[in-house]
Amino acid sequence: MGTVHHRIGVLTSGGDAPGMNAAIRAVVRSAESMGMECIGIRRGWNGLINGDIVRMDEDSVAHIINRGGTCLFTARSDEFRTKEGREKAYLTCKLLGIDGLVAIGGDGTFAGCLAFANEHDISVIGIPATIDNDIGCTHYSIGYDTAANTALDSIDKLRDTMQSHERCSVVEVMGHRAGNLALYVGLAAGATAVLVPEEKWDFEKDVAEKIRRARLAGRTHYMIVVAEGATSACQVAEKIKKSLGLDPRVTILGHVQRGGNPNARDRVTASRMGYWAVKCLADGKTNRVVVHQNGEITDVDMVEALKTPHQLPIGEQEVLSALTGAKI
Amino acid sequence: MGTVHHRIGVLTSGGDAPGMNAAIRAVVRSAESMGMECIGIRRGWNGLINGDIVRMDEDSVAHIINRGGTCLFTARSDEFRTKEGREKAYLTCKLLGIDGLVAIGGDGTFAGCLAFANEHDISVIGIPATIDNDIGCTHYSIGYDTAANTALDSIDKLRDTMQSHERCSVVEVMGHRAGNLALYVGLAAGATAVLVPEEKWDFEKDVAEKIRRARLAGRTHYMIVVAEGATSACQVAEKIKKSLGLDPRVTILGHVQRGGNPNARDRVTASRMGYWAVKCLADGKTNRVVVHQNGEITDVDMVEALKTPHQLPIGEQEVLSALTGAKI
Amino acid sequence: MGTVHHRIGVLTSGGDAPGMNAAIRAVVRSAESMGMECIGIRRGWNGLINGDIVRMDEDSVAHIINRGGTCLFTARSDEFRTKEGREKAYLTCKLLGIDGLVAIGGDGTFAGCLAFANEHDISVIGIPATIDNDIGCTHYSIGYDTAANTALDSIDKLRDTMQSHERCSVVEVMGHRAGNLALYVGLAAGATAVLVPEEKWDFEKDVAEKIRRARLAGRTHYMIVVAEGATSACQVAEKIKKSLGLDPRVTILGHVQRGGNPNARDRVTASRMGYWAVKCLADGKTNRVVVHQNGEITDVDMVEALKTPHQLPIGEQEVLSALTGAKI
Amino acid sequence: MGTVHHRIGVLTSGGDAPGMNAAIRAVVRSAESMGMECIGIRRGWNGLINGDIVRMDEDSVAHIINRGGTCLFTARSDEFRTKEGREKAYLTCKLLGIDGLVAIGGDGTFAGCLAFANEHDISVIGIPATIDNDIGCTHYSIGYDTAANTALDSIDKLRDTMQSHERCSVVEVMGHRAGNLALYVGLAAGATAVLVPEEKWDFEKDVAEKIRRARLAGRTHYMIVVAEGATSACQVAEKIKKSLGLDPRVTILGHVQRGGNPNARDRVTASRMGYWAVKCLADGKTNRVVVHQNGEITDVDMVEALKTPHQLPIGEQEVLSALTGAKI
Repeated sequence: MGTVHHRIGVLTSGGDAPGMNAAIRAVVRSAESMGMECIGIRRGWNGLINGDIVRMDEDSVAHIINRGGTCLFTARSDEFRTKEGREKAYLTCKLLGIDGLVAIGGDGTFAGCLAFANEHDISVIGIPATIDNDIGCTHYSIGYDTAANTALDSIDKLRDTMQSHERCSVVEVMGHRAGNLALYVGLAAGATAVLVPEEKWDFEKDVAEKIRRARLAGRTHYMIVVAEGATSACQVAEKIKKSLGLDPRVTILGHVQRGGNPNARDRVTASRMGYWAVKCLADGKTNRVVVHQNGEITDVDMVEALKTPHQLPIGEQEVLSALTGAKI
Repeated sequence: MGTVHHRIGVLTSGGDAPGMNAAIRAVVRSAESMGMECIGIRRGWNGLINGDIVRMDEDSVAHIINRGGTCLFTARSDEFRTKEGREKAYLTCKLLGIDGLVAIGGDGTFAGCLAFANEHDISVIGIPATIDNDIGCTHYSIGYDTAANTALDSIDKLRDTMQSHERCSVVEVMGHRAGNLALYVGLAAGATAVLVPEEKWDFEKDVAEKIRRARLAGRTHYMIVVAEGATSACQVAEKIKKSLGLDPRVTILGHVQRGGNPNARDRVTASRMGYWAVKCLADGKTNRVVVHQNGEITDVDMVEALKTPHQLPIGEQEVLSALTGAKI
Repeated sequence: MGTVHHRIGVLTSGGDAPGMNAAIRAVVRSAESMGMECIGIRRGWNGLINGDIVRMDEDSVAHIINRGGTCLFTARSDEFRTKEGREKAYLTCKLLGIDGLVAIGGDGTFAGCLAFANEHDISVIGIPATIDNDIGCTHYSIGYDTAANTALDSIDKLRDTMQSHERCSVVEVMGHRAGNLALYVGLAAGATAVLVPEEKWDFEKDVAEKIRRARLAGRTHYMIVVAEGATSACQVAEKIKKSLGLDPRVTILGHVQRGGNPNARDRVTASRMGYWAVKCLADGKTNRVVVHQNGEITDVDMVEALKTPHQLPIGEQEVLSALTGAKI
Repeated sequence: MGTVHHRIGVLTSGGDAPGMNAAIRAVVRSAESMGMECIGIRRGWNGLINGDIVRMDEDSVAHIINRGGTCLFTARSDEFRTKEGREKAYLTCKLLGIDGLVAIGGDGTFAGCLAFANEHDISVIGIPATIDNDIGCTHYSIGYDTAANTALDSIDKLRDTMQSHERCSVVEVMGHRAGNLALYVGLAAGATAVLVPEEKWDFEKDVAEKIRRARLAGRTHYMIVVAEGATSACQVAEKIKKSLGLDPRVTILGHVQRGGNPNARDRVTASRMGYWAVKCLADGKTNRVVVHQNGEITDVDMVEALKTPHQLPIGEQEVLSALTGAKI
């Protein structure tokens, strides 16, 4: 490409994640520092289709680095999935003189970017943000750590009351197709057992036996963490009741996990990724996703990125089973 | 009475609440400072029945003031509801030389105290602790403020994501028979509407119309807080969907509200109430409940206490309706 | 008075406190709901002098209930202490048609109100907000509980590291003339000793001996909490080093205590007080301070209010000495 | 080596850090799951010298994963720096049959390990834990993220009150020889300027000019973050006062940064490193440090580790200057 961009757009799309505001701020300020103008596109791709835009400068992002959610709002867009929708979106770009786009979101957002860039003369850079951390191309997605700590804080509180009443708790955390959050949080919480969607599990071996071993080792309360994509917490609780005679309490953490002020890691990662995305545009790059790999921020090809399968971190699984239930 | 007690027991009973540990600590240390010995009774009344006890001194309560839950465990006891159960419990008291009891819990705990003291020669003092704050005789029960802040923190996080997605949220907080927590938290959260068990409510007037007014006033997200005793959050969400065409998200905060490190107010109240309870025993009192009334710690007759009906605070309701939905 | 107000002003003055925004929101929304218009006056009395104002409606206070600080800014004003300053301020009121004022702050703010109302035809209502909780006429001032929990969270963290290293800590909390915060936080933290400005203290008896007793009772770390008005943490640490041979660490919590999202108690109290203040104006009252007394929100005469001396709560002191150091 | 260890020791040494307990728990449980016995050595190397030890099993580490500080206590040991001290320590090992050691701490701790292992027949594995994150061989040290979030929470609170009063704040965070924490926190906090010990700084260019630019860009409050090793916050504040006429407030966060419950990242990292350390011993390795490199947990030679110079992360510095003050 090699074009020098004068005016770029930034949008958030898909489910929101803590740190999106910090990423927006970094995009806007980095653009300014590199001599570009930045337009905020509101409500995801719909904003580009409908011309729902707002001019942004250093001042408009002045107090958002520490705020959860996204000041540009977010939404899913069926219309952008159609060629017609993307054409409308391109008209907005043409009208405004936008020739570069930074899109903050997940795989669906990047797929939208690609379709758009394939059809129209626009440079696109993706920034991964999702509390599920299930984007294959990057080790880290913005929002993951804040969500993990939100879930962990709740489980720590649950632990207090479960311990007082000597009860069993089944907690459902977010993660439709990925168990990263469940595994990470379960490890941090000292869970008795963790169930994830990536792996087959057997109630007798992976839940009942672990509870038994914990009881034999002296525990009188048990914490089972399940990813929503693995099973339903209620079903697991029902089985525990039937099979072990315990009376478990179910907690579904739900959307609370999506909100909250981003923590240090998410603000720093978002700031670095936002800066990197704009640098990509300044360098004339397009169709790239900013990623965190091997401890570094870098960028990868967006087509390759979308092909990279999501994987559950192996190290954490091994440790989890060594630390819980391995020994009676 | 006028007896000088030499050895007293302390127990927690019913649902646990943050600050119970601070109350136990205060009872144990106050007893020591007034020349009495203190025995911890574990697992509520069951502990007295089964002799599940532990000797406590200054050191055994050294690092618990800031811990959630109760180090003495808690449970409900069917056996203590029987005369035979209470006789067994009394034998434990006789064996150990316990002639005074401090019981930390709710109305059910105090009813147990009364039945016990009516049949046996034992002085009983109750300390109110429940996150519902639904004990009629006292303005404040240990655990309420911590639970309220736990719920509020979650709702603040929800607000972030509801705002980003311009959605409606229905949140269910604890409170089977009392709406105090829902009202308090709803007021603090700037809720669009609050539903409590003490008051009849009409979906059209108390929910739908308030959402409409909020929309007309510029809001694009809405927060409905319901006490579990008023209705189910899922039902309210269903009605909102049908009646207003919104797609609300349901959050049930659940047992998380019972846990967590007690905050300043609960630690201070628990410390003061624990001290006061022991002073009551030292003064030869029995059948008293320590209460917070008119800004002061004092004690009231336990029979009267159990007759005092729980009331929803009027002031907060009035303010809530002035601040939300009153004006378009 | 009996005037019906059509346009009122609201300002924050003196040191800021968490919950001021919730109070502003309540004033603005209550005014609207009672048919009055509300003008925000920025930077305290200076804003009235300089015409630094902003029109406020339901929307302008839409997302501030959970924010620390004050969206109207605050400042101290030397000019308003002069008759000329107050005359300039009155001209702004006349120009804008403001005939009622709600001033959120401390004793100094109320003194300003009185001087202003004595000279000019304007109704004034004060709302107490200060993290020191040192306003004699009210049991509770907005911001106190949030500040106490901020300090307590820090002390809880300190406790971890002091315990690991078996060290002594001296923590200085805010409070020039009032020890309320120090006493409250010290009690909640399980402090070894607390020093407040209202009471004479003797190093040997009130610090050294308490540390010795704690050591004899098994403790190996000690937490001394001092109000900044009582002494300097550094001096106390110096004496501990000389007299007991320990090597204490000093922590001065400072302005961090003034900030942070207001907690449930401060948001609810601020909402109720803001509403009450506007109701006072609607009822034709002037020269009143909204207060929290005997568990209720009410209002008192401002002249009387300023005469009411601040007092340290007696109950908490007694409990503190029973729970720490009283017994070896 | 290749010895199979039957009994190993674990200790924490140097300054404590949140997550040390999670590491101890992982060492103890991993040892059990691999068939080794684990002895806790208290108060660092002193415990080995004095035989201050405690037998540990699954149960003794049951509720510590979420606790700050270290349950084994920590201390610096002058005696262990002498050959005689290390000989005494070895006698304890011989008496107890300890032939492997896991030492949790910083560079000083690892130097102690090496000296010990060079003189005596004992396998040593180090785990990096320090809130400064200044250990050259590893990208991440246990405690860093929790400390960063503690500092960030305080700065977020400060921001509220600085904004209300339109003031300048100078905050001193920990870091004698390393600016990592200051840089990380400063980036996350949106600081106006950050001063670190690794880089020369010029007041006029690196502080005054940045404040001026922020003012020109519309800011009315400024946040200067300094690492304690770079300069004193008081001196910077003094210069700002003299040079710019502002009246800055100084905050020294101090030891509070060392405490607090470890967050998810520190608990997970500690669990993984603890497990890895025991696996090293099981594999017959010695003189290794467990590290986090390129996104993975692995181990490196201890001699090499101690030679690896600490470096300030370059990426974060570049971003910081792009996002603050770069553009007027």
